[in-house]
Amino acid sequence: MTVTSHDVARLARVSQATVSRALRGDPRVTETTRMRVREAAATLGYVRSELGRGLSTRATHRIALVAELENTLYHQLMAPIHDELLERGYRMALLAEHGDEAIHERLLDRSVDGAILMTTRLDATLPYELARRSLPFVFLNRIGGPVEAPSVTADNVGGSRAAGELLIGLGHTRIGAIVGPADTSTSRDREAGFRDALEDAGLVLPSKRVFRREYDHETGRLGFAALMAADDAPSAIFCANDFIAIGFLNRALELGITVPDDVAVIGFDDIDMAAWPAFELTTVRNPLLAMARRAAGTLIDLIESTGAAERDVFPTQLVLRRTHGAPSESTA
Amino acid sequence: MTVTSHDVARLARVSQATVSRALRGDPRVTETTRMRVREAAATLGYVRSELGRGLSTRATHRIALVAELENTLYHQLMAPIHDELLERGYRMALLAEHGDEAIHERLLDRSVDGAILMTTRLDATLPYELARRSLPFVFLNRIGGPVEAPSVTADNVGGSRAAGELLIGLGHTRIGAIVGPADTSTSRDREAGFRDALEDAGLVLPSKRVFRREYDHETGRLGFAALMAADDAPSAIFCANDFIAIGFLNRALELGITVPDDVAVIGFDDIDMAAWPAFELTTVRNPLLAMARRAAGTLIDLIESTGAAERDVFPTQLVLRRTHGAPSESTA
Repeated sequence: MTVTSHDVARLARVSQATVSRALRGDPRVTETTRMRVREAAATLGYVRSELGRGLSTRATHRIALVAELENTLYHQLMAPIHDELLERGYRMALLAEHGDEAIHERLLDRSVDGAILMTTRLDATLPYELARRSLPFVFLNRIGGPVEAPSVTADNVGGSRAAGELLIGLGHTRIGAIVGPADTSTSRDREAGFRDALEDAGLVLPSKRVFRREYDHETGRLGFAALMAADDAPSAIFCANDFIAIGFLNRALELGITVPDDVAVIGFDDIDMAAWPAFELTTVRNPLLAMARRAAGTLIDLIESTGAAERDVFPTQLVLRRTHGAPSESTA
Repeated sequence: MTVTSHDVARLARVSQATVSRALRGDPRVTETTRMRVREAAATLGYVRSELGRGLSTRATHRIALVAELENTLYHQLMAPIHDELLERGYRMALLAEHGDEAIHERLLDRSVDGAILMTTRLDATLPYELARRSLPFVFLNRIGGPVEAPSVTADNVGGSRAAGELLIGLGHTRIGAIVGPADTSTSRDREAGFRDALEDAGLVLPSKRVFRREYDHETGRLGFAALMAADDAPSAIFCANDFIAIGFLNRALELGITVPDDVAVIGFDDIDMAAWPAFELTTVRNPLLAMARRAAGTLIDLIESTGAAERDVFPTQLVLRRTHGAPSESTA
């Protein structure tokens, strides 16, 4: 005979709905009740059927996290998102974007209740499709085009403006930038904030001093080659994320170029690695972990009630380490 | 009126089973048929219901990946596993181990067809439970206790033996090791292989020269403090993974200790970072990406037919960079 949730409910002396809530970790169930239900379930050898539950309530209690697995920045965000979801009775399903044509179908086949989009490009069609089908979603870190949806981002414009002001205050006038893909809101906003600071000081960022590619270590190496060979090479470089900055620092090390004496470098994000003695990168702190938890909470609010499409912008902060400095005699 | 897979089958002039196979990417369906079915589905606006499919076939075509999200080594393996699964018509569900009591229940509630275990401890009970309930699973990189299950690992004993032989060949006699958790097969086997090499050369690895903690950057820093303060400090250190070795190198940099002149360092795994100019770490290559794909394939074979419980051991290889060298006058 198969043990059902009715049997568990009878033994634990609670309703069947309470058994269901208790076993999926719903916070409305008290700890005492939860323990009683778990004990009853263990005694009877009851294992909840995910499939049955899905069909009966039309809710899967599963949230999709849409990410690029190649970008290790997003890996750090999986743990806080997973934890926040679990605390509220949801599971995380990871959908990877790389080369995965079927992702639209996979989001729309009713196997998830909502989605967190971490890697949206400005021209992406996915947010429009989700909105049209009324699948709740939240943008995290990056936003898509002008779709009405909640977003949780850092103050990318303000943070990169502060980076620009730091370099200008140190006396740099020949300044370059290595940025990420043009179709991401983060790179667009970080470049814009940095340009604002330069323009306010009467400086320009000529296209010959801007290198644009992916948000990765290799881009820092390639950007070094593209920008630093010129006779009037920049004396300071702003990198739109820390991976790029660390790639640049590694290339400088390899060539015996001294940072910050030969060239000053500022990153963005403040990933763990930025603080390592090998790099001691001056950067802009992007409060990604707090943002990730907020995004998960916002999405669940949206699914469970009628959350509004708010834009949450977290403040950033300059972190001064050892890669910024005044231009030297030879580079000034 | 709801569009069903029958309607798609009629329009595409194939059987309903073929529609189902084509839409989940089953390789038994030819590319031409797959395109025809997808077009028919698009024309009719058909979206496959994950839940209905699960109930009708009792197979979810979802595989759980059990990982520690804190350990970034495993992040690199998600992409190849995801790709291999997708090619064979399966999806990946990520289950994170940290503080997640419910993981046993989540693996046994019929929401997945099988599991890849990447972070098993030697005393874990999960593999026994999965075996008892007949849920197919594969060990990747680490193995659990003596449970009958397929595994895909590197030759950890052989790789660390080679690291030991390298240090001995360079003339080191005072040798230390910083290893991972005692209850992981990788740390157990890497320590054993390294000890074998020392014993063959008539050397010992005294407990005062072994530091044991987690497989992370912080362990390298703490291991430095624990082992390098002694008057007869080691002239060479074997680290059981690259994160540990890089933590050790960062601490050495911070203190102005020169590697390899003051102390030689060898890691294990050959993660991308090991090749960076900031580190140029001599290490043992662990062919993790190939192993990850193999594990995914082995698991699907096991689910779809009657795969045997084989132990796949991938060869390792020494990668010589700049952190190994002979002991200097002062350290010899």
